[in-house]
Amino acid sequence: MSRVYNFSAGPAVLPEEVLREAAEEMLDYNGTGMSVMEMSHRSKAFQEIIDTAEADLRDLMGIPEDYAVLFLQGGASQQFAMIPMNLMKNKSADYIVTGQWAKKASEEAKKYGKVNIVASSADKTFSYIPDVSDLPISEDADYVYICENNTIYGTKYQELPNTKGKLLVADVSSCFLSEPVDVTKYGVIYGGVQKNIGPAGTVIVIIRKDLITDDVLPLTPTMLKYKTHADAGSLYNTPPAYGIYICGKVFRWLKKQGGLEAMKAHNEKKAKLLYDYLDESKMFRGTVEPKDRSLMNVPFVTGDDELDAKFVKEAKAAGFENLKGHRSVGGMRASIYNAMPIQGVEALVAFMKKFEEENL
Amino acid sequence: MSRVYNFSAGPAVLPEEVLREAAEEMLDYNGTGMSVMEMSHRSKAFQEIIDTAEADLRDLMGIPEDYAVLFLQGGASQQFAMIPMNLMKNKSADYIVTGQWAKKASEEAKKYGKVNIVASSADKTFSYIPDVSDLPISEDADYVYICENNTIYGTKYQELPNTKGKLLVADVSSCFLSEPVDVTKYGVIYGGVQKNIGPAGTVIVIIRKDLITDDVLPLTPTMLKYKTHADAGSLYNTPPAYGIYICGKVFRWLKKQGGLEAMKAHNEKKAKLLYDYLDESKMFRGTVEPKDRSLMNVPFVTGDDELDAKFVKEAKAAGFENLKGHRSVGGMRASIYNAMPIQGVEALVAFMKKFEEENL
Ligand SMILES: Cc1ncc(COP(=O)(O)O)c(C=O)c1O
Ligand SMILES: Cc1ncc(COP(=O)(O)O)c(C=O)c1O
Ligand SMILES: [Mg+2]
Ligand SMILES: [Mg+2]
Ligand SMILES: [Mg+2]
Ligand SMILES: [Mg+2]
Repeated sequence: MSRVYNFSAGPAVLPEEVLREAAEEMLDYNGTGMSVMEMSHRSKAFQEIIDTAEADLRDLMGIPEDYAVLFLQGGASQQFAMIPMNLMKNKSADYIVTGQWAKKASEEAKKYGKVNIVASSADKTFSYIPDVSDLPISEDADYVYICENNTIYGTKYQELPNTKGKLLVADVSSCFLSEPVDVTKYGVIYGGVQKNIGPAGTVIVIIRKDLITDDVLPLTPTMLKYKTHADAGSLYNTPPAYGIYICGKVFRWLKKQGGLEAMKAHNEKKAKLLYDYLDESKMFRGTVEPKDRSLMNVPFVTGDDELDAKFVKEAKAAGFENLKGHRSVGGMRASIYNAMPIQGVEALVAFMKKFEEENL
Repeated sequence: MSRVYNFSAGPAVLPEEVLREAAEEMLDYNGTGMSVMEMSHRSKAFQEIIDTAEADLRDLMGIPEDYAVLFLQGGASQQFAMIPMNLMKNKSADYIVTGQWAKKASEEAKKYGKVNIVASSADKTFSYIPDVSDLPISEDADYVYICENNTIYGTKYQELPNTKGKLLVADVSSCFLSEPVDVTKYGVIYGGVQKNIGPAGTVIVIIRKDLITDDVLPLTPTMLKYKTHADAGSLYNTPPAYGIYICGKVFRWLKKQGGLEAMKAHNEKKAKLLYDYLDESKMFRGTVEPKDRSLMNVPFVTGDDELDAKFVKEAKAAGFENLKGHRSVGGMRASIYNAMPIQGVEALVAFMKKFEEENL
């Protein structure tokens, strides 16, 4: 058994301790005589798993009682439809487009109502976050939508937009639990868990309870109504039970690390190591406006496609996996989520320095 | 580590061999240095996992080239909407109602078009399958829908309905891969994997390719269009990767057991043990019309609620889990899916005999 440093943007590295526990419990979870994969979702043992997961997540994020926590399926992409189907009472919403995922979300929403793009950073290949302090928010907007951390381009909102009283809806797929968050500033916070939390197949939706109603767009499938799942404690139908179980373990691991304040410090330290080197390197440079840099996804280039390819290849041979940039932008990207140990980033920077010396 | 006999209706027992392999590979799958949970769905290693899973499933079921195999999310319940949204070109469909799941599917379909209930066994608490040899199939029906094995009531179609040329759509959640099947008789075969195949969170849809079109009902979410997933080889967005990996292991396990002919023989042998005892017992009896008995789900009662409860309690103490009947019908139910070893059924029958002697 030998582990690589896995810089994948998602699905992504998980805490080794969590994987070890899961392996140990695979045939017999906690004396039940069965795997969590084999467990009825109506059983007491599973109810405890999902209740504990929710309680720990509430604790970590400080989620107030007037917000529901839902464990759903379909990935973040399914939320692109669920959000307008559930929230577009006036059939109007404002979207800020800071990358492909926000763009995709806005395009899906167009099926269901009027979509106003109130800001965009498309003019500079999404390498920055626009000024969102005073946007032309629409009078009739049901919500303002953002993708808070842009996985592909490596940008992150440092300040939330001024929504002028409108509801804020945020896709946090790639920054979930990476730092403390003030939940009360949002109407909906959601994300696929497969980057910072668990295995693909679970999406977590944190939604203010007054937004959960039967007043959804006509033809909304039962499974795409938040109320269906909220009323049933995420057990309307068979949930992605094993995924929820792993998420629960990661929540406990995060609490053991000291919670989100500690994760933030840890993530800042890791990111600083890499960004500082990118800034001092004569070969490599980051592609993002420094003020908008993500703590999670760090894209960089040499400026020479062939050299980029050589770097990715040699890095892979040295045990640094998934450093190739997203197919739509090229170059490199190091995703350094919560579970990436600082040793991984130190080793990567050392490898980059050596590569630079050898190839400059 | 001690394993129980788990008679859960789903999520349900999985082959021990598969769980052992998964545990061994948890930190390092096949020399990749990472868990399948941590693996990019765009990686070569994952592409091989999903390709092999599909190839093995095609092999097991004899799925012809003109059918697509899709690995999706949302459970069987999400298919209740996807089927009408994708197939109701005339906005009309015929449903045969043989239990709660067919009923739920028919109710969801009513949102999208005219639903004709062409047969039902509701008159006798769904304890039989109606005669389906000559039904009043609607002229304009886009399809005829069945739930082929009724998990809650323990009935199974022994013959498929005569659809008079209309497309047949079947929910096979609780009989998936339990015996050979002639795929060409169906337009769509689908099921959640969490009973006979793998962990909850993956649904498999086998669909004739000509039925996969852009001509879906207006407002159908991108994620609920079969074409979205068919065009992308089930990788339009992040799939439930770990679930697909476990399904793939179960497919290989099934091939090693001798394929679906062998599983059928194995399942018939197990079911016969239990049904024969129910027929001879003076205390216990099956609740289903003998001709329509399921090989997978075996409901039974003593006729006395208190005695039923005593049985379930003592069985649990003796290591027989999840024998309580579905909350909507009471009594007992033993689900004896592919992965339930014959020893489990033998032990259960022995336990029932002893209980009968002690309590009669
Ligand atoms: C920010 C963000 N949103 C949405 C998605 C889409 O997620 P999913 O594949 O779960 O649909 C991704 C996937 O990488 C993402 O990074
Ligand atoms: C035959 C059948 N269809 C559909 C379902 C619903 O499946 P899911 O929970 O995956 O939505 C079940 C669940 O037990 C079932 O037995
Ligand atoms: Mg992006
Ligand atoms: Mg530089
Ligand atoms: Mg049923
Ligand atoms: Mg009897």
